[in-house]
Amino acid sequence: MAEKKHRGLSELLRVPGDEPVDLSSYDTRATTGGPSGKKAALADTALTGERLAGLQERLWAASTAGDRRRVLLVLQGMDTSGKGGTVKHVIGLFNPSGCRIRAFKAPTPEERAHPFLWRVRQALPHSGELGIFDRSHYEDVLIARVRELVPTPELGRRYGQINRFEKSLTDDGVTLIKCFLHISYDEQRRRLLERLDRPDKHWKFNPGDIDERELWPAYQEAYELALHRCSTPRAPWHLIPADRKWYRNWAVSRLLLEHLTALDPQYPKADFDVAECRQRLLKGA
Amino acid sequence: MAEKKHRGLSELLRVPGDEPVDLSSYDTRATTGGPSGKKAALADTALTGERLAGLQERLWAASTAGDRRRVLLVLQGMDTSGKGGTVKHVIGLFNPSGCRIRAFKAPTPEERAHPFLWRVRQALPHSGELGIFDRSHYEDVLIARVRELVPTPELGRRYGQINRFEKSLTDDGVTLIKCFLHISYDEQRRRLLERLDRPDKHWKFNPGDIDERELWPAYQEAYELALHRCSTPRAPWHLIPADRKWYRNWAVSRLLLEHLTALDPQYPKADFDVAECRQRLLKGA
Repeated sequence: MAEKKHRGLSELLRVPGDEPVDLSSYDTRATTGGPSGKKAALADTALTGERLAGLQERLWAASTAGDRRRVLLVLQGMDTSGKGGTVKHVIGLFNPSGCRIRAFKAPTPEERAHPFLWRVRQALPHSGELGIFDRSHYEDVLIARVRELVPTPELGRRYGQINRFEKSLTDDGVTLIKCFLHISYDEQRRRLLERLDRPDKHWKFNPGDIDERELWPAYQEAYELALHRCSTPRAPWHLIPADRKWYRNWAVSRLLLEHLTALDPQYPKADFDVAECRQRLLKGA
Repeated sequence: MAEKKHRGLSELLRVPGDEPVDLSSYDTRATTGGPSGKKAALADTALTGERLAGLQERLWAASTAGDRRRVLLVLQGMDTSGKGGTVKHVIGLFNPSGCRIRAFKAPTPEERAHPFLWRVRQALPHSGELGIFDRSHYEDVLIARVRELVPTPELGRRYGQINRFEKSLTDDGVTLIKCFLHISYDEQRRRLLERLDRPDKHWKFNPGDIDERELWPAYQEAYELALHRCSTPRAPWHLIPADRKWYRNWAVSRLLLEHLTALDPQYPKADFDVAECRQRLLKGA
């Protein structure tokens, strides 16, 4: 039973890949494993931020000595679930120079002319970097399924393609952290109404977002299938209850902390004569 | 004389392009126009950060309605002058999703096969973004001059090419903010020694950095020439006294604030019927 030892938030939020997923059984307002109040969560997230920035520097430093490891955070969720807010508040805790952020929109004609994973491969983090996907290749089994953008057999093949692709990434030193930001239907309505109430948020609003709500059940089903089929041991999905923004930010920052701590990147040792260099500088160079 | 009205820090730090530049006449420890102490500077920079993030969001929002304006911060300076530290501390004040950061290293074989501005064009900010260049096309008249990497006539042509290129950018809606981080020869020694004293900084050190110090006068001369020939009315150079990190961060954040404030980006007005959308949502959608 030693393997079942508690391994932190990653384990608590992990979606088991071996059984079908029923999203309605997950409470979108839960604060699993975290502080139960906003104030404590904000304070804890800020503290976590300092540790994240330190670990990120070590990851980057290690890459300068040939360590090829890197981290990729994948954010998925319904409209208004807080993907952008997570980038702003959680990724904002890191040194921006080591972050490679990509927001995936509807594919361009060029992207459409390639296999669906092509544009994703262009956006991967380099050694020592933290990559962030705001939406991802999962759109190709989500909106693609709901809107019937591809023939069913092709859709069916994509889950396996995604799993093989992600395995190749983890084999190559990528730590994948996949987060589904889970909000409720009512919370989405509340957030859309807030965008309407505030003129400084109108630019985020699209009347099509309301039409899209009619497809809510189909999207939930598509997510259930994607989480079930693609939550693998090496690249599991995490379900983040996301109705409370402060918990969402706390949880994602905590997941990043757990994974970066586990990587334990090290500052490389000097490959030059430190004392000699010091002498040269002190003697006037 | 109305034109000579004081226009803030940008004007105080601007390098006049109409006369030769003598870098030795600029005090690298100056705190021009800023708080004279570290504590006040840090507090002021943090406050500036909140305003910067707000202006950045407006710039991004405006781009969603077709506003093509964008900002490009160019950072140049000798080794250890704090280009990376500026990105960490100043650009860290922004929402990372709207920042496009590029650190230019020695050109790759592919980059070398193209005109020197080619790789720079690939890295430009898109509409609504803040672009950041850690080093830039100016390396092609700095190290290229000092190390005699190109024939003299070609080098001579590059200043004009840079000016025309930058004019085309400003014509196209790019606000260019060019900053030369000016440190002293002694301050560089101090910073290199600090890197040697701290094992967690060894990875930043390269013994070649000491050899490079022998070329200090040649680099200063190359900078003087670049600042003189390429400080144009539309794309002026700013000289940032950079021996004090807290002043450097204060000054660069302030320059960004002045330029973003002048742009005065606006949230776009709703192009849909707000009341109707609200009704649809309230009636159950």
